[in-house]
Amino acid sequence: MIKFKYDRNGLMPAIVQEAGSRKVLMLAYVNPKALRISLETRKTCFYSRSRKSLWIKGETSGHYQKIKAILTDCDRDTLLILVEQSGAACHLGYHSCFVHLLDSKGNIRKITEKKKFDPKKVY
Amino acid sequence: MIKFKYDRNGLMPAIVQEAGSRKVLMLAYVNPKALRISLETRKTCFYSRSRKSLWIKGETSGHYQKIKAILTDCDRDTLLILVEQSGAACHLGYHSCFVHLLDSKGNIRKITEKKKFDPKKVY
Repeated sequence: MIKFKYDRNGLMPAIVQEAGSRKVLMLAYVNPKALRISLETRKTCFYSRSRKSLWIKGETSGHYQKIKAILTDCDRDTLLILVEQSGAACHLGYHSCFVHLLDSKGNIRKITEKKKFDPKKVY
Repeated sequence: MIKFKYDRNGLMPAIVQEAGSRKVLMLAYVNPKALRISLETRKTCFYSRSRKSLWIKGETSGHYQKIKAILTDCDRDTLLILVEQSGAACHLGYHSCFVHLLDSKGNIRKITEKKKFDPKKVY
């Protein structure tokens, strides 16, 4: 494994992009163990900063992310993970977490997607 | 401006994606001032953690990023900035910073792009 630059909390941001549509789905964080699990299982595994534990994306919702490729950047401090998303990535029910479009003042102008599922029925 | 969740250093990650090709170009960090400048000028402005100062992307290289849209996520702690990239985003000369493809052991398997410029001639 190459030497990655983890931050002072031992974490590194990972951008998750849908391989087919090229939509950016979410950003989460990995520690070395989460990255190793992701590499071995080919399912995304992250470190939850709020729950302070590892987390297999989809373990509650069933909406797993099958890893097609993992790339890193010139500084070795960020990952880009290309996935096949089953269901939807966002816990609010949207396919992508990035659906809140800002206006020029930094307020929410509109929501760019319709929900794919009802979070109350999934979580 | 809505209330964003900045980290303990007052920063928030911003994913930069090319609007046309949908390539993910880079990840950088904003503080509230960098975000305000980005919103007002429609050119990306970030906070450099190494130089500890604001930084207009392209101010040295001429490779500015013209902002087409800014989105935020469900947690309000990450931005997705859609841009038109002039030149190339990566200081190594690649169009995207994410060109280092990992193998299953986490080593670099290959570089996925050819350089668009010689960094020695630009920086």
